[in-house]
Amino acid sequence: MNSQSRAVTLLTDFGTADGYVAEMKGVLLSRAGGVNIVDVSHEIPAQDVEAARLAVARYWRRFPSGTVHMVVVDPGVGTEREAIAVESGGQFLVGPNNGVLSPALLALDARAVVLPIPPHAAATFHGRDVFAPAAASLASGVALDELGETLPSPLRLRTREATRRADGAIVGEVLTIDRFGNALTNLVTRSAGSVLVAGQLLPLVRTYSNGRIGDVVALIGSNGFIEIAIRNGNASQLLQLERGAEIVLFKVE
Amino acid sequence: MNSQSRAVTLLTDFGTADGYVAEMKGVLLSRAGGVNIVDVSHEIPAQDVEAARLAVARYWRRFPSGTVHMVVVDPGVGTEREAIAVESGGQFLVGPNNGVLSPALLALDARAVVLPIPPHAAATFHGRDVFAPAAASLASGVALDELGETLPSPLRLRTREATRRADGAIVGEVLTIDRFGNALTNLVTRSAGSVLVAGQLLPLVRTYSNGRIGDVVALIGSNGFIEIAIRNGNASQLLQLERGAEIVLFKVE
Amino acid sequence: MNSQSRAVTLLTDFGTADGYVAEMKGVLLSRAGGVNIVDVSHEIPAQDVEAARLAVARYWRRFPSGTVHMVVVDPGVGTEREAIAVESGGQFLVGPNNGVLSPALLALDARAVVLPIPPHAAATFHGRDVFAPAAASLASGVALDELGETLPSPLRLRTREATRRADGAIVGEVLTIDRFGNALTNLVTRSAGSVLVAGQLLPLVRTYSNGRIGDVVALIGSNGFIEIAIRNGNASQLLQLERGAEIVLFKVE
Repeated sequence: MNSQSRAVTLLTDFGTADGYVAEMKGVLLSRAGGVNIVDVSHEIPAQDVEAARLAVARYWRRFPSGTVHMVVVDPGVGTEREAIAVESGGQFLVGPNNGVLSPALLALDARAVVLPIPPHAAATFHGRDVFAPAAASLASGVALDELGETLPSPLRLRTREATRRADGAIVGEVLTIDRFGNALTNLVTRSAGSVLVAGQLLPLVRTYSNGRIGDVVALIGSNGFIEIAIRNGNASQLLQLERGAEIVLFKVE
Repeated sequence: MNSQSRAVTLLTDFGTADGYVAEMKGVLLSRAGGVNIVDVSHEIPAQDVEAARLAVARYWRRFPSGTVHMVVVDPGVGTEREAIAVESGGQFLVGPNNGVLSPALLALDARAVVLPIPPHAAATFHGRDVFAPAAASLASGVALDELGETLPSPLRLRTREATRRADGAIVGEVLTIDRFGNALTNLVTRSAGSVLVAGQLLPLVRTYSNGRIGDVVALIGSNGFIEIAIRNGNASQLLQLERGAEIVLFKVE
Repeated sequence: MNSQSRAVTLLTDFGTADGYVAEMKGVLLSRAGGVNIVDVSHEIPAQDVEAARLAVARYWRRFPSGTVHMVVVDPGVGTEREAIAVESGGQFLVGPNNGVLSPALLALDARAVVLPIPPHAAATFHGRDVFAPAAASLASGVALDELGETLPSPLRLRTREATRRADGAIVGEVLTIDRFGNALTNLVTRSAGSVLVAGQLLPLVRTYSNGRIGDVVALIGSNGFIEIAIRNGNASQLLQLERGAEIVLFKVE
């Protein structure tokens, strides 16, 4: 496969205005000419590893086989944390070994290698000097094992699982708040039911618009998990929901 | 025409940090490998159909024939509003039937079809499960009529037209405020004249810099409509202009 | 070289939501079909020529030979300031002659030409009507000299150089603040030493994480210049640093 046909996606917390992202793109194009650069986001909150991990979980499997995902949210850059490359489900990922690549590392066939840090690499910018060159190599068809030694136990962070209470209710939490103010949770259900959050008992509905404008609702989000939302409004602001807020699910049997 | 040569543009109100946009990009690349993804914006204010419509009006005709424009600003996702695909002026557009595609639908040769919602589609994310697959099909050369049944009367929103007063003055309004604080209006003129806005009578000038720094001016914007601006400043903030604010144009005959 | 193999990068202060950037992309694709559009940023603060110049300095040389860089931060659009195209180090740049292209113009082999303003060009949007067409021509292999007459002395802005005090200390300043709150300076050193800023004497360290969390440090940034940073925090906010703030470097011989 030639580099022409491979996409390299980019997720960072760099913003774009300072030119750091452009430096990485220049390295990618200089080393893998025909590569197709796809911006995921550069607006991850600064150093928010958890937000990056949740975003990666959402998108990485949606891309075609052979795609290379660069994930550079890396508060520990230049320290002892390893730089790694991963092959998983026919796709490749590069980034720090701080948990951001966990969604791919949790797959059964996942393999990781440690990327050597070249002596000239800036200690504050592995995105440019370590990850972009590795991504360019993978996009050009270089095999994972040519990039470094196997890392047997890369850091695998998992989303905390919801738990079952004695009374049968399921207790979960808010994982993150999206741009619309929807609170995304770790609760899954296929049953009908209701959800208790911030002192309000909400019915489970099918889509945002099953509520009247202004009504808070709970619904099954596009990745299968329950979200708290308001039709045409900001639920998390109204209910003062933050990451970690408790959500209780009562199923109707 | 093969997909290699076709661009798919993306306009949403999703922001990028949550990974929703990346999910759509993954679907596009998985279904139409060589497609050229072009970001328009993901920073439309949440659920602001009017802002999306005005942006589409500005850019859709600028792209080459065969381009596919995805427009996903869709507060009614999952309700009875149709998902549609449009062919107009040699270009294609997909999005909700809520008015965002109006600029293309108002062309004489425009045709629209209703996209069926597959049973597996998430009720909250037609961007990923309905619009991206349709855009990939169009980018791969599938004909519009293969995507769905004709929709005879899609929703066509029009910009409110300026009106003529008894004294001959033209009364218009602010349509939107751009990032520089310029207030864009629905007033057009080729004559010399002046403009009354927020109690100030402003001369019509040719470019931002025909005013002194700090002076508010009225000028003909890049799409032919009058804008209210300050050289190196924020006119809308200074004059407290908002969408809908009245603007009166006095032409010099 | 055909346009298929050439990238056109875009740096503006337009934001994306208003559709101006999309208009430029449409012109590029309409005039140079196979061109590879690479977003650098559209989030330069409005009319901030200095921020654009510093970003360009960072990325322009990283791209492959033949790349065309569009830089449209242009408060003087429509005035007597020239529109120019530049060839330098095998790369091309287009933008206003207001200093934003200085990093490339300071190279020994740099050449600049004046782009004629066509009569139909909007006086407020040379990005669409002057710079994008010129970039498309360069990406399609048109020679620089075919675009306009030579401009012998384009505006070349330089970063102010640090100076040496009588006591041997080096006095520099903060050039810009990045998204992480790191203050980037005009000080370079290969020696050990310490830095005085906002009344604090900071050791020079190798990477962000050589400080404890909460400690302000000075370190060599990824472009070779000293930065003021806090591990996992915002140094410029804490020390109230702004552009132009004085920084004194004491080298250890």
